[in-house]
Amino acid sequence: MSNVDPRYGRVAIIGLGLIGSSICHAMRRGKLADHVVGFSTTEATRKRALEIGFIDSVASSAAEAARDSDLIILCAPVGAYGKIAAEIESVLKVGATVTDAGSVKNAVVRDVGPYIPDGVHFIPGHPIAGTEQSGPDAGFAELFDGRWCILTPVPGTEHQAVAKLSAFWEACGSKVDFMEPRHHDLVLAITSHLPHLIAYNIVGTADDMETVTRSEVIKYSAGGFRDFTRLAASDPTMWRDVCLNNKDAILEMLGRFSEDLSALQRSIRWGDGDALFNLFTRTRAVRRSIIDAGQEEPVPNFGRNPTHAKLSDESDQ
Amino acid sequence: MSNVDPRYGRVAIIGLGLIGSSICHAMRRGKLADHVVGFSTTEATRKRALEIGFIDSVASSAAEAARDSDLIILCAPVGAYGKIAAEIESVLKVGATVTDAGSVKNAVVRDVGPYIPDGVHFIPGHPIAGTEQSGPDAGFAELFDGRWCILTPVPGTEHQAVAKLSAFWEACGSKVDFMEPRHHDLVLAITSHLPHLIAYNIVGTADDMETVTRSEVIKYSAGGFRDFTRLAASDPTMWRDVCLNNKDAILEMLGRFSEDLSALQRSIRWGDGDALFNLFTRTRAVRRSIIDAGQEEPVPNFGRNPTHAKLSDESDQ
Repeated sequence: MSNVDPRYGRVAIIGLGLIGSSICHAMRRGKLADHVVGFSTTEATRKRALEIGFIDSVASSAAEAARDSDLIILCAPVGAYGKIAAEIESVLKVGATVTDAGSVKNAVVRDVGPYIPDGVHFIPGHPIAGTEQSGPDAGFAELFDGRWCILTPVPGTEHQAVAKLSAFWEACGSKVDFMEPRHHDLVLAITSHLPHLIAYNIVGTADDMETVTRSEVIKYSAGGFRDFTRLAASDPTMWRDVCLNNKDAILEMLGRFSEDLSALQRSIRWGDGDALFNLFTRTRAVRRSIIDAGQEEPVPNFGRNPTHAKLSDESDQ
Repeated sequence: MSNVDPRYGRVAIIGLGLIGSSICHAMRRGKLADHVVGFSTTEATRKRALEIGFIDSVASSAAEAARDSDLIILCAPVGAYGKIAAEIESVLKVGATVTDAGSVKNAVVRDVGPYIPDGVHFIPGHPIAGTEQSGPDAGFAELFDGRWCILTPVPGTEHQAVAKLSAFWEACGSKVDFMEPRHHDLVLAITSHLPHLIAYNIVGTADDMETVTRSEVIKYSAGGFRDFTRLAASDPTMWRDVCLNNKDAILEMLGRFSEDLSALQRSIRWGDGDALFNLFTRTRAVRRSIIDAGQEEPVPNFGRNPTHAKLSDESDQ
């Protein structure tokens, strides 16, 4: 933890879905803002945010939220960023910090950067946290606890502003890392974007079978398929925008995945048991590393058998 | 629940890993056997099974376990079935039932069927349950609760023997279905085998990157990747044998998956946002159906945020 004061005076949250509302809950838990103003393009969401009470006031436009704010966090789908940036450009006050929670970073620099006036700090960010749920009811204060938040400040950003935003995320429960935007997009393409696309794809494939009924897919999903349906239940707008805004890195990862899948397919066709056994053994160690790094719970089967949620080690058969 | 007596006298469990040991625990819970004898080819496993105490006695061979048993359940990797069947053929007693817990069924009929003597009932089975853990310490009595068990009796099997085995699985907590072996293999290829292969493949792809380090893959795995590592930590021997013994159905499903992935890749390359949005929306409903069918827990993010394990519905953003 740094010694920098993590608190901001007025904070504007633009986009009040899972991430926006979770940031609000985390700010309240950590007493990180004097006043939180929220905006969503959806009227029902604005109303619901006030009802739940995770914002202090609601704005009628992105510009109204951003005006006089010390910290502005874009939490909308990244495809909407350019329009939002153009709307808030003229009201941003000197010394304010503009950041975001988007899953791509190079496109954010491209779309938002040109609208940031002199004297305003622009520090793109990405908390690596989420659930398959969306909307203002899905948020909760603990979402960022122990998860990484990646900041990708553009060259020349004032050090003090970066340190303060970093302290803010730490106070929200996160661990903070810094990265170049393009490298962020490559890392997330393999750790997040490709997994979501593969999950969406396999659920789509299963939904399209003729020889196996949809009811059979549902009934016997405990064989493994159900795991994929979690990611494939994620917000469609958000993920459409991620695909459209990290095209090159995603296509690169899809290419590698397909190449490896062809090799696996060939091993199956030719009955190469050793190649299969070697791959299946090598991948086993990766989960252990993720658990050791504190990024996954050690309970078997995602804790689906609560009466048996023991922390057992793997043992030989 | 049927009115048939689910209890057997002497039960032989051949293979004492996750599934074998879980059946033993479930039998004890339900008082379903007078005596349970276990066998594993691994000496350490035989010793451990006795220590844990989920078997009443240990045998020094599959034949010794099968001799005088009323129910013999093969719980070894399916690639070992032919050898086991040849070993136990001569000791099987008239009226005994031979079944198994393997993830493929047509190959089991092919490999085991020829060794079943007249007067012995052969009823292949498959409980659709498991965790990513393996070995005798991984088993627990609740594993089959609420999960389906598919039986694929060969034509001409005595009705009473099938009804008794069905009652046995129900007493272990399962719901029982019947299927043709070939249809079972097709259904499981999409609901279980393809998901495991895709998980193994993506974890392998991520492990092979040069531009993204292994440490970065681990650190930022909460973006989605970590979900896949669970299935990819499953037992390598079991899954090698599944691949080698359900080749045709798996290759068919891999072909469909790859075809759909190419279409998705094309949508990304050409920026077809509508096609992406439509797929990502359609898949969302599948998870809801699985939860409604009682085959998945309704908690967000697999319950990884226990302080927030609320049963919230999805709501609009």
